[in-house]
Amino acid sequence: MLSVARHTSTRRRVLETAARLFQRQGYAATGLNQVLTESGAPKGSLYFHFPGGKEQLAAESITISGTRVGEQMAAIVSAAEDPAGAISGLANLFAADLGGSGFHSGCPVATVALEAAADSEAIRSRCESVYGAWAEGLSVALERWGVAPQDCLPVAEFAICALQGAILLAKVRRDARVLDSVARQLAGQISQSIRAERP
Amino acid sequence: MLSVARHTSTRRRVLETAARLFQRQGYAATGLNQVLTESGAPKGSLYFHFPGGKEQLAAESITISGTRVGEQMAAIVSAAEDPAGAISGLANLFAADLGGSGFHSGCPVATVALEAAADSEAIRSRCESVYGAWAEGLSVALERWGVAPQDCLPVAEFAICALQGAILLAKVRRDARVLDSVARQLAGQISQSIRAERP
Repeated sequence: MLSVARHTSTRRRVLETAARLFQRQGYAATGLNQVLTESGAPKGSLYFHFPGGKEQLAAESITISGTRVGEQMAAIVSAAEDPAGAISGLANLFAADLGGSGFHSGCPVATVALEAAADSEAIRSRCESVYGAWAEGLSVALERWGVAPQDCLPVAEFAICALQGAILLAKVRRDARVLDSVARQLAGQISQSIRAERP
Repeated sequence: MLSVARHTSTRRRVLETAARLFQRQGYAATGLNQVLTESGAPKGSLYFHFPGGKEQLAAESITISGTRVGEQMAAIVSAAEDPAGAISGLANLFAADLGGSGFHSGCPVATVALEAAADSEAIRSRCESVYGAWAEGLSVALERWGVAPQDCLPVAEFAICALQGAILLAKVRRDARVLDSVARQLAGQISQSIRAERP
């Protein structure tokens, strides 16, 4: 039992370290030796836990990081009173992550996705699932707020896209204000589409 | 004179090769040896032309690729009859690039920006200039189509953000249809804001 617990904890520690490094540095810049050193995992444990090597580690890291951010997003959206509050809360979440990391972090998935999704099906499909879950979560809330059912998922995807682009622009400007501007415009559009449907 | 011409052409060839590789593979995955080999440039010419090494090469590559795409965008926007035509033309440009490259290419700037902008001021400032020029170009067209002057730049930035996010989502789905959906929603929003201002 002890041995199983230790294995689980080593595996988890390696994964948490890898997730942090992939998010901050990207896929190609993150080496397995760095993951081993920073996680303090015994040499040899890496291929024991991750026989698929760096690709497997990155794929699982994306699920870990993406799910964690997805849960933060869900909490913000479910606490919001209306679409404007939800979108502005999401923008603040990403802005805080950017500002708090000296504009190193941002979206936990985007850098690795752009680098590696075209070459690795394992990584691509994990990225797709993460963004799909984020959009689905927002879509459910939009329906609750009165967006027409058939529009909820496209509008949610549109919002995720606009926020992703704003994270990118904020990074290259070292200035997160573009997230506010994008959030305001998104919120305006969503409110308008709700009003347009009301009799 | 011959020598100057040869220097210029070597420099240009190295830069074009580097720009293609950085766009396709990202910053960390692109090595100087690969740039040398694929450009057929003589060894030693790299540090002669680019004393700042890989960082300088990436920074200049971003300007080259970003300016080229910016010119394509400007041509599309200036040929369009209205905002909907312009936005849909831009979405088609990016969709064609994604589809034609097996979803390897997309935005020529985004991957390197996410990887390296936080660590390199030279790269960050070039990325900022490229996105700034794209937004400015679209902003001028929006004013011509009747968007209120104070809204043109924020709306143009919003459009660039949404399209950037859509490129990312298209890559992780290996499916460019999200660009259509985002373009339609963007165009709808812009048209509505123009109508709202007309007496």
